[in-house]
Amino acid sequence: MLGTAGAAGAAGLAVGAGGGLLAGPVGRATPGAPGDTTPLSSVGAARVDFHGPHQPGILGAARAHAELLAFDLLPASGRGEAAALLRRWSRAAGAMMTGEAPDADNGIAGGTGPSGLAVTFGFGHDFFDAVGLADARPRALDPLPEFSADALDPERSGGHLWIQVEADDPTVVFHAVRTLQRAAADTARVRHRMAGFNRVPGAASGESGPRNLMGQIDGTNNLRPEQEDFADRVFVPGDGEPAWMAGGSYAVVRRIRMLLDAWEEQPLEARDRVLGRRRVDGAPLTGGGETTPVDLGAVDERGRPVIPADAHVRVSAPESNGGAAMLRRSYSYHDGFAEDGSPDAGLLFVCWQADPMLAFVPVQRKLDRGDALSAFIRHEASGLFAVPGGAEPGGYPGQRLLEG
Amino acid sequence: MLGTAGAAGAAGLAVGAGGGLLAGPVGRATPGAPGDTTPLSSVGAARVDFHGPHQPGILGAARAHAELLAFDLLPASGRGEAAALLRRWSRAAGAMMTGEAPDADNGIAGGTGPSGLAVTFGFGHDFFDAVGLADARPRALDPLPEFSADALDPERSGGHLWIQVEADDPTVVFHAVRTLQRAAADTARVRHRMAGFNRVPGAASGESGPRNLMGQIDGTNNLRPEQEDFADRVFVPGDGEPAWMAGGSYAVVRRIRMLLDAWEEQPLEARDRVLGRRRVDGAPLTGGGETTPVDLGAVDERGRPVIPADAHVRVSAPESNGGAAMLRRSYSYHDGFAEDGSPDAGLLFVCWQADPMLAFVPVQRKLDRGDALSAFIRHEASGLFAVPGGAEPGGYPGQRLLEG
Repeated sequence: MLGTAGAAGAAGLAVGAGGGLLAGPVGRATPGAPGDTTPLSSVGAARVDFHGPHQPGILGAARAHAELLAFDLLPASGRGEAAALLRRWSRAAGAMMTGEAPDADNGIAGGTGPSGLAVTFGFGHDFFDAVGLADARPRALDPLPEFSADALDPERSGGHLWIQVEADDPTVVFHAVRTLQRAAADTARVRHRMAGFNRVPGAASGESGPRNLMGQIDGTNNLRPEQEDFADRVFVPGDGEPAWMAGGSYAVVRRIRMLLDAWEEQPLEARDRVLGRRRVDGAPLTGGGETTPVDLGAVDERGRPVIPADAHVRVSAPESNGGAAMLRRSYSYHDGFAEDGSPDAGLLFVCWQADPMLAFVPVQRKLDRGDALSAFIRHEASGLFAVPGGAEPGGYPGQRLLEG
Repeated sequence: MLGTAGAAGAAGLAVGAGGGLLAGPVGRATPGAPGDTTPLSSVGAARVDFHGPHQPGILGAARAHAELLAFDLLPASGRGEAAALLRRWSRAAGAMMTGEAPDADNGIAGGTGPSGLAVTFGFGHDFFDAVGLADARPRALDPLPEFSADALDPERSGGHLWIQVEADDPTVVFHAVRTLQRAAADTARVRHRMAGFNRVPGAASGESGPRNLMGQIDGTNNLRPEQEDFADRVFVPGDGEPAWMAGGSYAVVRRIRMLLDAWEEQPLEARDRVLGRRRVDGAPLTGGGETTPVDLGAVDERGRPVIPADAHVRVSAPESNGGAAMLRRSYSYHDGFAEDGSPDAGLLFVCWQADPMLAFVPVQRKLDRGDALSAFIRHEASGLFAVPGGAEPGGYPGQRLLEG
């Protein structure tokens, strides 16, 4: 389930163009890509459109920083208050994403460009009960099954409302988070907050894509917008169910702790066999380079599979899961050190799909049973959110649900 | 004590050139400065020298990311183990700062340039007892006085050894932190860790310097290397006491929580009077622009001081403190939200001086009694560390102490 998984193409963390992108970098032609010499001022100038058929934080480049916030509505907040909150949030997000100051601005981002700010809103399972719309809850929000290796913290899981805030500058992220928190005012309060990062634009020295905290190149063989079935896999179709989710997507969020002490004790060759890829260059053990397709059928001179039966890249591959695949968009996190001295660090895994039962769930079921990587990771928090299609100017995501 | 204080010049967070800088950006001519169009690849290429008369994280530009780590020696570790640890740490830091892989590398920073990585080592008060060198402890490490507004958490204060890790890329910072932690192995363990950030190179849209989380332009009127008395104020002289601190400096570290709910409730005009500067452009209330000297003697038409008697800029000014001044180098932090919903956010304040009793202590004593800003901040952690001069190639900081 980590970003080194999958075997269906190549896109890296930057997954190409799509609705919602105005001036932001696209795909691997992003600042920070090998050989890129885009002027530095473009980091601040990168601008993503809040409005469009899809919300902004799904397609296009993942940014260097993200905060994932879950809010719970306060007891007195119902459907009307939630609608007003989404309207306030959307107005503020739309302004900040163009580099304008929101209402009653605290000034933290003064002098800074929008820096690719992308704000994305979602609804959790219990939101629908809280606003008296339980009948409108999509079946796709049915709770995820329990997986045997889960060690979920309920305090950091779930939530009525979810916001993904991303930008290439950390002060821009804080400004947006604080602004949205203040706008929640007496309607909702923060339930949990997770912060993550990726390699910053311009930090690459040349040879490869960004890496996760296990040292693996991350994002190889993600879904690509140019794939024929990309939209069907990621977005609810225009005539899909429920109607208010047309153009929307479902986000699965997992806080995946990496057990780095155990991982780094393994010889490099053993680590490569756990993944099925070489750490040094991301190439599959069956040869070639980072973007070479994995040859799951290859055997060595003694007839044994070159990619071990329990290698992460095999167990997570669409070929091993009836074609199931999802659009991955992940961030590393580091929240300090545990009592035993080990780092509290890993991956904030976010994936996007039209239906979790056809994407995350079957793949994670398989990983839960048979992935060699399971010994070195622990899923510590989980979320599942319905992310409606993008808002029209003056509107807000979910308006068809709340005002329908 | 926040970065908007002082009245002695103008340098911003980027405080100009000095020993230890190789290819890194300098002063306000740094990537991210207004109008800068340095190629993005320079973010990764920026390189700071580990060796030199001073350690690397004092002069030169503050970076976009920092972690401040305190370690305690384990009971079995004495002077020999500490010396060996400093040697291992220095070898790893020197390699990583040139973009080379350290021993037994975990690969996390593969494909990334050094990104201005700067690793700086210091010794706390109790280190000298732990290694049997209590007689060698500098008087300057005497515990700081208690200030009435302090609410210090001992778990996040103090420590035998201190490391300041800075870089413009967060994955480079994590790579260095994890590498240094592993190198501590059976000799020392992490006591506390604080993470901070500044505006990233290239995020500026043009008009002003970086801001802190109160929305104020930060770093105006810091000490400048071109000031005649700069070296005397910041560094222990070559013939100073103790001899092993020649070329060194003392770092005071304060985790300063900003009470943002109370702060943002104030009208903008009230906030400006608390600081003595305009939030919008950083100009003193006595007029001009951000870099215009503050006129502490100016009065309005009714004879009242334009800069209020308790304005932060007045109380912290060298003119109000017998000339006391220090070199400031601060980072914003955001560690989530407290139980009451308020952000756990503020400033990781680091300042550098040849003698804390002539710099931080008298200024903080004055601020503690008379600063209008005190109602909106809370000092929650404190550290004081002796940071020896820079190492020669093959050596390590503090070698004269530990092998003298």
